[in-house]
Amino acid sequence: MRVTVWGENVHEHRDRPVRERYPDGMHGAVAAALADRLGPGHHVRTATLQEPEHGLTADVLADTDVLTWWGHAAHDEVDDAVVARVHDRVLAGMGLVALHSAHYSKIFRALMGTSCTLRWRNDGETELLWTVDPAHPIAAGVPHPLRLPAHEMYGEHFDIPQPDELVFISSFAGGEVFRSGCCFTRGAGRIFYFSPGDQEYPIYHHPDVQRVIANAVRWAAPAGGTGAAPRNRHAPLHWYDGEAAR
Amino acid sequence: MRVTVWGENVHEHRDRPVRERYPDGMHGAVAAALADRLGPGHHVRTATLQEPEHGLTADVLADTDVLTWWGHAAHDEVDDAVVARVHDRVLAGMGLVALHSAHYSKIFRALMGTSCTLRWRNDGETELLWTVDPAHPIAAGVPHPLRLPAHEMYGEHFDIPQPDELVFISSFAGGEVFRSGCCFTRGAGRIFYFSPGDQEYPIYHHPDVQRVIANAVRWAAPAGGTGAAPRNRHAPLHWYDGEAAR
Amino acid sequence: MRVTVWGENVHEHRDRPVRERYPDGMHGAVAAALADRLGPGHHVRTATLQEPEHGLTADVLADTDVLTWWGHAAHDEVDDAVVARVHDRVLAGMGLVALHSAHYSKIFRALMGTSCTLRWRNDGETELLWTVDPAHPIAAGVPHPLRLPAHEMYGEHFDIPQPDELVFISSFAGGEVFRSGCCFTRGAGRIFYFSPGDQEYPIYHHPDVQRVIANAVRWAAPAGGTGAAPRNRHAPLHWYDGEAAR
Amino acid sequence: MRVTVWGENVHEHRDRPVRERYPDGMHGAVAAALADRLGPGHHVRTATLQEPEHGLTADVLADTDVLTWWGHAAHDEVDDAVVARVHDRVLAGMGLVALHSAHYSKIFRALMGTSCTLRWRNDGETELLWTVDPAHPIAAGVPHPLRLPAHEMYGEHFDIPQPDELVFISSFAGGEVFRSGCCFTRGAGRIFYFSPGDQEYPIYHHPDVQRVIANAVRWAAPAGGTGAAPRNRHAPLHWYDGEAAR
Repeated sequence: MRVTVWGENVHEHRDRPVRERYPDGMHGAVAAALADRLGPGHHVRTATLQEPEHGLTADVLADTDVLTWWGHAAHDEVDDAVVARVHDRVLAGMGLVALHSAHYSKIFRALMGTSCTLRWRNDGETELLWTVDPAHPIAAGVPHPLRLPAHEMYGEHFDIPQPDELVFISSFAGGEVFRSGCCFTRGAGRIFYFSPGDQEYPIYHHPDVQRVIANAVRWAAPAGGTGAAPRNRHAPLHWYDGEAAR
Repeated sequence: MRVTVWGENVHEHRDRPVRERYPDGMHGAVAAALADRLGPGHHVRTATLQEPEHGLTADVLADTDVLTWWGHAAHDEVDDAVVARVHDRVLAGMGLVALHSAHYSKIFRALMGTSCTLRWRNDGETELLWTVDPAHPIAAGVPHPLRLPAHEMYGEHFDIPQPDELVFISSFAGGEVFRSGCCFTRGAGRIFYFSPGDQEYPIYHHPDVQRVIANAVRWAAPAGGTGAAPRNRHAPLHWYDGEAAR
Repeated sequence: MRVTVWGENVHEHRDRPVRERYPDGMHGAVAAALADRLGPGHHVRTATLQEPEHGLTADVLADTDVLTWWGHAAHDEVDDAVVARVHDRVLAGMGLVALHSAHYSKIFRALMGTSCTLRWRNDGETELLWTVDPAHPIAAGVPHPLRLPAHEMYGEHFDIPQPDELVFISSFAGGEVFRSGCCFTRGAGRIFYFSPGDQEYPIYHHPDVQRVIANAVRWAAPAGGTGAAPRNRHAPLHWYDGEAAR
Repeated sequence: MRVTVWGENVHEHRDRPVRERYPDGMHGAVAAALADRLGPGHHVRTATLQEPEHGLTADVLADTDVLTWWGHAAHDEVDDAVVARVHDRVLAGMGLVALHSAHYSKIFRALMGTSCTLRWRNDGETELLWTVDPAHPIAAGVPHPLRLPAHEMYGEHFDIPQPDELVFISSFAGGEVFRSGCCFTRGAGRIFYFSPGDQEYPIYHHPDVQRVIANAVRWAAPAGGTGAAPRNRHAPLHWYDGEAAR
């Protein structure tokens, strides 16, 4: 499995506490956790906004089974051509794990077709994530509830399509709820949205959060490999005789 | 629209506070609210456990478009033959609105195929119901959140099939969440589960709860009328030529 | 209910057989059928590509509960600003009924987030539409199967998100299948895709096709009215005390 | 992975052509294919109706991760206590792959909550299975379409709950369609219904059918292991402090 961990990498330079919390960047922390948890035989790399083509060249994407995405302060600086390239690649089978404020990234909004807006409040409240689909592989080994002692609140209504599979629902000390773990399939690609991960809290050092992300990467990996982007095709009568094509 | 409000009608006789809260029975309160909110041209009646065949004779069911169900203390006393009759009728198109502890009724469990178990705690906590599908007709006019100042806690994991449409998610002061408004289609019948309504609180006098139940009854009514129970059918080649049948 | 029937209105001018089949335009045929079937008290108008802003000004959209859309030859000529305006309006609650080759329109693709590609063949084959959700209001009164003696083939894989509700599946004489009646909710808006309606066949004169479209318009109308487009909102702690807001 | 292949094993004794087609029983053919395709490290056994407790003792079930089920002529002879035991075990996490006429088995109907009825015709028609969810692991490596030269027709309306994931839709030469590959989650258990496999045709010798069943067994295996059957539980306030329980 080839995983690319994309990080916006802005707060780490702008905000000293974030840099101290994540000396290798938030992407670095996520990548290290994945490398550790996926184990040998898998390849984990990082890419960031500041690299040419944001580090997401056609070659890198062609060599990626699952892409994770974290962005917040600079959604608008992501180039539309790169977004279109990632979009095509997801429809062709690449998995995508969208983390926290990636709910409002160009790529996630393009894939969802909705505004992806929500309510929020950054008061450092306790968040509890409850598993509502215990059979789901992304929930394997995850405590019920998963407790984050302090986190930003994200609340409903979260304007997303009804998830194909809803895995986690969060509650916050202030009373709000949030669909915090959501699976979608778009084209041949699998997408998991997971809301934990505000930069002001050490969320990606939390072992259970790491476990969820590793489970999600495994789940999102293309079972049948990736292919070409879907296209309209003329189908002559009985085209399938003499073929064994998809 | 012909609505039958079924009540177990046990707590009302056993527990003085319940009787004082609901002098006409819990079924009486629900029926009065529906009669008022659905308006003229609709017929609302009640039926209870203590009546012959629990008031759910073949004739009554044939004359019912939507059945609401509340039970708690006496699930086991409901006759299996009546349950089977209601089950068949739902598959043939009758709507069902299952209220609160009806989660564990024979009819709801038979329709779901799961254990319908949950976590619970009766500490009189604040419950907030959040709308996660604002386009849904059952959410029309319902405040976000809908607040119940004191109620029994029902918490996840709630062992139901993934709802076809999830309308409400509740949070409780103690931190739990619950899928409190869930739509299912089974056969030609529409089912709505709505968790508010413990007998120890005046929930069915709450105007917004009444609004939800009235919306649910309208939603669950069979758009194309009710028919016969589904059955296996032999279909000769091109049977549909010369027919216009379902 | 206020319905706007949008027509691309290109084939009607370019292709004599289409003009003869639909002397008032395809949009004219759909609008007449809807006016007839919805009955008095509802307002049906048309809008076309050739009008300023394609007839879809902010005022027209603000005055529209459900928009139907047919396009084929000129998807690229639809202005992106108008698409964005329609998109926002759907998320705010306006219903959308996408007809036939509207599967590849800018607005449908933007709402779905997928390529919306498919297989096709225009050989005038028999198409049978089978109801797989007999409880659904869009299926009310529709024969099983609904038969189109000759139509263009649309076949799987149809690259759409899994529909929130799948109502019809088509088969074609050549053996293909197609998810031909699909419901989606996006934001507060309801969307129905219905595949019948190639311009080379008199599909919109077929009474059962008209029935489906009228059912779909009723289903897609916003139950709770339309509101503002969703947006991110800061939520102070316990903001909901003293409010009754969505 | 521990797989138990359950066979009704009646046609094999009653009908000479079935016995000749499947000299080791239909269950024997399925088990051999699974043993071959799952490879070493997995354990595949069979169980049949005629064994004590139908071969499905508590010990066997406790030692089973995925159960496959084929029945047709003797659904009524399956003991209700065994059905209840299998049901509990599925809710506790055991996977179930229901094959062909198992649509009408007691266990499948109990899990679905619907009548599971359908239309049928045994005229040896060509069946084509089309993949509508190409990202699904059960579709990995499966041709599009998968062709069965001659098979019994199963047609809609198939009275099942809307599948959580719809993977395959079949067409038949006579024009019918059928949702032939359907995923459900019930409790902690995953269920796949796959319609090919009438006893009068050599379906389980077809390599692509075998591939689907092997994929389905892998998909249905419990990612987090199996546990106890779900039950109602009292949850004291803040029970989760000091626990890490499910």
